[in-house]
Amino acid sequence: MSEAFGEFGARPGEETADLPEAFDAGLYFIGQVRTPWTVRSDCPRNSGQSDAVCTLAVDPRFAPALRSLAGTSHLIVLYWMDRAPRNLVVQQPRHAPRARGTFALRSPARPNPIAVSVVELLDIEGGRLRVRGLDCLDGTPLLDIKPYFASTDAKPEARVGWREAEAAPEAEINGGAAGRGAP
Amino acid sequence: MSEAFGEFGARPGEETADLPEAFDAGLYFIGQVRTPWTVRSDCPRNSGQSDAVCTLAVDPRFAPALRSLAGTSHLIVLYWMDRAPRNLVVQQPRHAPRARGTFALRSPARPNPIAVSVVELLDIEGGRLRVRGLDCLDGTPLLDIKPYFASTDAKPEARVGWREAEAAPEAEINGGAAGRGAP
Repeated sequence: MSEAFGEFGARPGEETADLPEAFDAGLYFIGQVRTPWTVRSDCPRNSGQSDAVCTLAVDPRFAPALRSLAGTSHLIVLYWMDRAPRNLVVQQPRHAPRARGTFALRSPARPNPIAVSVVELLDIEGGRLRVRGLDCLDGTPLLDIKPYFASTDAKPEARVGWREAEAAPEAEINGGAAGRGAP
Repeated sequence: MSEAFGEFGARPGEETADLPEAFDAGLYFIGQVRTPWTVRSDCPRNSGQSDAVCTLAVDPRFAPALRSLAGTSHLIVLYWMDRAPRNLVVQQPRHAPRARGTFALRSPARPNPIAVSVVELLDIEGGRLRVRGLDCLDGTPLLDIKPYFASTDAKPEARVGWREAEAAPEAEINGGAAGRGAP
């Protein structure tokens, strides 16, 4: 973790929290995300910047849970950004004018580094789903797959305050400091 | 967990998986979701069925991470459905014609019971956010808060295969067996 933290660096204006001494709950990795990107600098800045086809490789023990997904166009994918520091509460994105709160960013650096991405489902073969809309490193641990319901999940009118105020470019969705995914 | 499993029951057609012997990663609860519902039968079937105002109460150590959220209209909220069984890979929703895979449902019963809800942000006061769009029990552990980006998160055209095929009613989004939230 200290090595990963070194990659992010601590920038002026950033703030950290003392993390609790113990975890409150545990996660199982249910498979892996397979992408074309093996080093962080190759990853797209966000999922909108690439139409690469990626694969969700679900472990055999959980593959029966994929039943009934045929005909579903979009999924919510949860994965684990295991290289991010967890104690940054205020972050200075690389190209942003000022530091921002972690919960106002999609940076992978957060207390629970769970990334949420909406992907297009292309096809399913056994325990492997081909999807479009990811931007994370190859081998990223997979946590969950859910159907996307437009009725409750689509809010096309949504606005992000700091983004409008600062006219920040699309590339800053991840918070700049990140560059690793679009959690 | 066995008690919780009893609440869900095991129905004909359901399938379970042998869970791994150990967890792969750990979570911190960053606060609590405060809602008007203290027993599961009172919870709305999904977030679209209620416009109740709920509160995200963020622990003081993580509250600085809320900076920069002002002016943001919608959030992605992640919370922990801690009463759900984790080994159900095929589930028989109460009112559905047939069993479905867990990853095709939003049921809280899943290997990693992380709920994802899109909420409207009403206001922020200290570490407390008033929001609309939740349907979970009062006291549900909070995991993460992210800004909702319409550019990558809104897919109004998304379709769910089994729902169209079976003309399932809106009330079945959660999988029926659940009734506890809209993960």
